[in-house]
Amino acid sequence: MSLPGRSVEITGVVEWKAGCLRRCTDELSGEEPLELRIGGVPINVIMRTPGYDIELAAGFLFTEGLVQRGEQVLALESLTDTEARGNVVSAEVAPEVLAGLDRLKRNFYAASGCGVCGKTSIESLRVRMIAPPNPRFRATGTMLCELPERLRNAQDIFGRTGGLHAAAIFDPQGKMCVVREDIGRHNAVDKVIGWALRRGLVPLDEYIMLVSGRSGFEIVQKAIVAGVPVLASVSAPSSLAVRMARELHLTLIGFLRGERFVVYAGEDRLQDAGGNPVVAASAY
Amino acid sequence: MSLPGRSVEITGVVEWKAGCLRRCTDELSGEEPLELRIGGVPINVIMRTPGYDIELAAGFLFTEGLVQRGEQVLALESLTDTEARGNVVSAEVAPEVLAGLDRLKRNFYAASGCGVCGKTSIESLRVRMIAPPNPRFRATGTMLCELPERLRNAQDIFGRTGGLHAAAIFDPQGKMCVVREDIGRHNAVDKVIGWALRRGLVPLDEYIMLVSGRSGFEIVQKAIVAGVPVLASVSAPSSLAVRMARELHLTLIGFLRGERFVVYAGEDRLQDAGGNPVVAASAY
Repeated sequence: MSLPGRSVEITGVVEWKAGCLRRCTDELSGEEPLELRIGGVPINVIMRTPGYDIELAAGFLFTEGLVQRGEQVLALESLTDTEARGNVVSAEVAPEVLAGLDRLKRNFYAASGCGVCGKTSIESLRVRMIAPPNPRFRATGTMLCELPERLRNAQDIFGRTGGLHAAAIFDPQGKMCVVREDIGRHNAVDKVIGWALRRGLVPLDEYIMLVSGRSGFEIVQKAIVAGVPVLASVSAPSSLAVRMARELHLTLIGFLRGERFVVYAGEDRLQDAGGNPVVAASAY
Repeated sequence: MSLPGRSVEITGVVEWKAGCLRRCTDELSGEEPLELRIGGVPINVIMRTPGYDIELAAGFLFTEGLVQRGEQVLALESLTDTEARGNVVSAEVAPEVLAGLDRLKRNFYAASGCGVCGKTSIESLRVRMIAPPNPRFRATGTMLCELPERLRNAQDIFGRTGGLHAAAIFDPQGKMCVVREDIGRHNAVDKVIGWALRRGLVPLDEYIMLVSGRSGFEIVQKAIVAGVPVLASVSAPSSLAVRMARELHLTLIGFLRGERFVVYAGEDRLQDAGGNPVVAASAY
């Protein structure tokens, strides 16, 4: 994977080691604001690692419910003039989306549709009626255990700066389709979903998503919106992530390390190499 | 440190280990939405680990610039009725703050003051004129190296769920004054700053802040708003975090592990045990 410009910055630093100092250089994960505009109007600023901004914008618009289908995004353009410096993506959307945004603008405090700004009441978090992901999808534990190493091998930035989260999408055989990195875990997820959306692969009902860090509520929500049946993480999920996964029948896997993992929800999607279920579905 | 209710949830899970499964229980980091109201009007929802919600609300209002001084927060109350279930904090603020919020509401898309919602243009990120932290504060490398272990010892949740970020404030001698944990790194920071704000300790111009994860732009911004002169992290900072720290003369330390750390900005605040500067200030 080649590095897009500005995803890594090199800078001079001072290293302190047991009382001795030396000047050296260090590589920093890029973090810059991306302003997202719809019909020319700024609607959000996302702090992100530059690179794959079009995918990020597409994924954000979709997973945060600003658009319901990929076709509603008519055009996405990265503005590279002197003022925008590549930190602005301008979206043209279908008329029905624009009408919804106007309502949002007139009624800001009561809005529920805008991902960041509109989450102004607890009840609004679950307003969008999303169907549970593909109930027939199956995966084997052995295959799942191979995914983290494939992700690490693909993470050519992470090894250098130690500062980036990653998200990847795998096909049912465990082949990696796409990997994206970002200083924000949710951005990495939006980038891979945006990638899929632009290829017509959404709903991702035959795919597995792996994230490098923890899986919180936002990550689970984005995966479910994209139709992903299995979400795995190398670390811990949160209580709300688990509750949401169980309510919407997402298979949620945590602590995927070596030959072990923990299944927090949707264990009925696990099967053995012979295609038999490894555990009966049951209440937790 | 005792655990506030709901910061940890116990649940039944399935463990997969080399093809064998067993049912067991696991402890999850709590994650629930906290709705913040000002004068009865919902202004934001923060996904957070329950506990220390009043401190979180105070810290958020201050570090995101909704209030400029602690005294502008007249009252904070956690609503515990059946509907709110402890997931709402209601704030009463000074009249001049309310007037500013009305402007914000009328002019949503052009707003710059509201932390999450108003960051709708890149330029607005740096609108607030914040003074650089205390230039006379000094710290020794030896003392800094002792802080991560003190943080870990205090993290009684982390050891169990593996899912929480921590932030702590230390006095100039390295004594820990407060530690807070949260599923959101920025929330942990807001909680310790809110703790300090309610004790009249802000600006924290004689204190050191340590965070358990990466230090991105948001963390640096919050530290600078609170007047912290030294921000240390056990992991990597981002490019924007470093740039902001250099512009505003915050001492920014990363990879604080064992007997080593990296100084990304403000190296002139480092001194040896005899009180002498260990390195001359210079451009990076």
